[in-house]
Amino acid sequence: MNTVVVGGGVIGLATAWRAARQGVSVTVIDPTPAGRTSHVSGGMLPAVNEQLYGRENLRNLCLASRELYPTFVAELEEFAPAGFRRDGVLDVAFDEDALSSLDRQRSFQESLGIRTERLTPEECAELQPAFAPTVGGLLSPDEGAVDPRILNAALLTALDALGGTVVRKRAVRVEDHTVVLDDGDTVAFDRLVLAAGCWTHQIEGFPEHAVPEIRPVKGQILRLHSDPPLVGLATRALSKGRSLLLVPRPTGELVVGSTYEERGYDETATAAGTHDLLTRAAEVVPGVGTLRFAEISAGLRPASPDELPVIGPSTVPDVHLATGHFRMGVQLAPVTAVAMAAFLTDTAPPTQVLPFSPLRFS
Amino acid sequence: MNTVVVGGGVIGLATAWRAARQGVSVTVIDPTPAGRTSHVSGGMLPAVNEQLYGRENLRNLCLASRELYPTFVAELEEFAPAGFRRDGVLDVAFDEDALSSLDRQRSFQESLGIRTERLTPEECAELQPAFAPTVGGLLSPDEGAVDPRILNAALLTALDALGGTVVRKRAVRVEDHTVVLDDGDTVAFDRLVLAAGCWTHQIEGFPEHAVPEIRPVKGQILRLHSDPPLVGLATRALSKGRSLLLVPRPTGELVVGSTYEERGYDETATAAGTHDLLTRAAEVVPGVGTLRFAEISAGLRPASPDELPVIGPSTVPDVHLATGHFRMGVQLAPVTAVAMAAFLTDTAPPTQVLPFSPLRFS
Repeated sequence: MNTVVVGGGVIGLATAWRAARQGVSVTVIDPTPAGRTSHVSGGMLPAVNEQLYGRENLRNLCLASRELYPTFVAELEEFAPAGFRRDGVLDVAFDEDALSSLDRQRSFQESLGIRTERLTPEECAELQPAFAPTVGGLLSPDEGAVDPRILNAALLTALDALGGTVVRKRAVRVEDHTVVLDDGDTVAFDRLVLAAGCWTHQIEGFPEHAVPEIRPVKGQILRLHSDPPLVGLATRALSKGRSLLLVPRPTGELVVGSTYEERGYDETATAAGTHDLLTRAAEVVPGVGTLRFAEISAGLRPASPDELPVIGPSTVPDVHLATGHFRMGVQLAPVTAVAMAAFLTDTAPPTQVLPFSPLRFS
Repeated sequence: MNTVVVGGGVIGLATAWRAARQGVSVTVIDPTPAGRTSHVSGGMLPAVNEQLYGRENLRNLCLASRELYPTFVAELEEFAPAGFRRDGVLDVAFDEDALSSLDRQRSFQESLGIRTERLTPEECAELQPAFAPTVGGLLSPDEGAVDPRILNAALLTALDALGGTVVRKRAVRVEDHTVVLDDGDTVAFDRLVLAAGCWTHQIEGFPEHAVPEIRPVKGQILRLHSDPPLVGLATRALSKGRSLLLVPRPTGELVVGSTYEERGYDETATAAGTHDLLTRAAEVVPGVGTLRFAEISAGLRPASPDELPVIGPSTVPDVHLATGHFRMGVQLAPVTAVAMAAFLTDTAPPTQVLPFSPLRFS
């Protein structure tokens, strides 16, 4: 069985690796593997967020992926380091509204059996002395983050080690179990996975409605650097109804994200996006100004029509979808990849993916 | 006569090229030619600025370099484009204090025979529609800017074409008409030019006081990008007692500079520097937020003890200095290079450089 995966972001690469691991012959097609949205992502792995309230299926999917992450990483690290850490995620509140939302989050997490610890302003200050004064916080000691750049590199290494192939070209259309590339070359497949994020529905050759339109939602993200690191824990800072993510890396990198912009296929990192993130970062961490400016970049989050992931067989025989992960691609990569490998080997996928079938759009 | 120039910034490269042009055998030593301060510089070429008031010698030096620029560029462009334009420099005022300083500048320029045109707020708006409302402006139609990256590349090309050599290593010390490099290699010279900016006095082997200490003054500079360009003319925006330089390039690049920081040998581009320049740019050009963020970088301006250039023979036989150009390296490159080539060929330099002899520090 020759399987082709169109799209070499974290979802496509993780799917390809898990399939290769189960003996499937895999080819990934992407002009810049691990080079777009997955390269820009901050990689924070919170237990829950407000997007999960009242969305039981998505919550179950997230919890399944959270459960799978350590094993997924351990198996991947047989090939290369994955950049995963589970040393806690901190939520800090800078106003009373934010504090209320932390209380709600705490109840929600505890109802799911996820450990949390309510912190006083003094405890927040002790834990993160670089922060501006908070009104309180929430520590989730079993959560963490992954460095998507390290994770993607590990996936490419692992895929290569298992005999998988990466074709660095753009897939233009599909006809008769064949993918046609932008230079006219073709790659035949028995089974196909479309995992090209917000570019998925641009691949031609499918009947109408078989592939839902995936809307790009731009996010700009900032990378600063200091040695030693200024911030220790992956943090979500809540203030004025907005949240800012701060993801420190052991290297001294501090990822600050992100903006949320509806601008079509525009991947431009702008002056305004940079200014906004720098301003908000300085509100949370007043000393951030001395940090080295390392990078500003923008990625396009893939949003399906209902803004939920699209995972599984499509209405087109032998064509599967794995896209629409919106803000949760890195977070949902393990469960998506395990599920896709199951579909590709005709075994049973984790039941949590079943509500996310592409068939809901037909 | 074998001449060695230590330092491959705009001053060292221009000196080397002019000397090579006059038949001198030249070797430039620099681990990263055209890679430090000269690479970061904005390249604005204003007729005058407030630093020239009451400093007749510096004013004469600037005017001499201004006079030389077109010929210098024309001769350089026999080898490669130099990125020079003289399509006008605009000064705009955002408050009454700034407007007074423009009036003073106008009188000063006119006393020197440099054309200026006083602009109303309406005329400023017509000339630069992207600007926030001003209280008035000054157009100097005969001034302009140069792209230092293009200029430096042209100098390297021209030097190479004339048989000059560039050794990409660091000069550590000088002994017995020999420069010792960081890998232990040596380069012999008949005559030596030290043109290593704020690193000049770090080269060992000279008697005390022969080489003045050159203080680094950090400047951070921002590069944005749009197509088409948002700003047409090189502009100095005066507001709240500060000035912001905006230098547009034909490519759509918009250089915004710069900070002024006394931080020793620290070339870090910081979050705070970036934030400051973005904030000030948005005050002058409200629509700047949509521009692509292309680069933030930092350079070290070389300031001599009296903050004036140091040009000519030193107290050490066969050792010349060409450094200390502070904020005016790109502006003063032609006159400095022409003078240095004269010194190296035992001909008469432009008289305007004579007050800048290194001997004033002995």
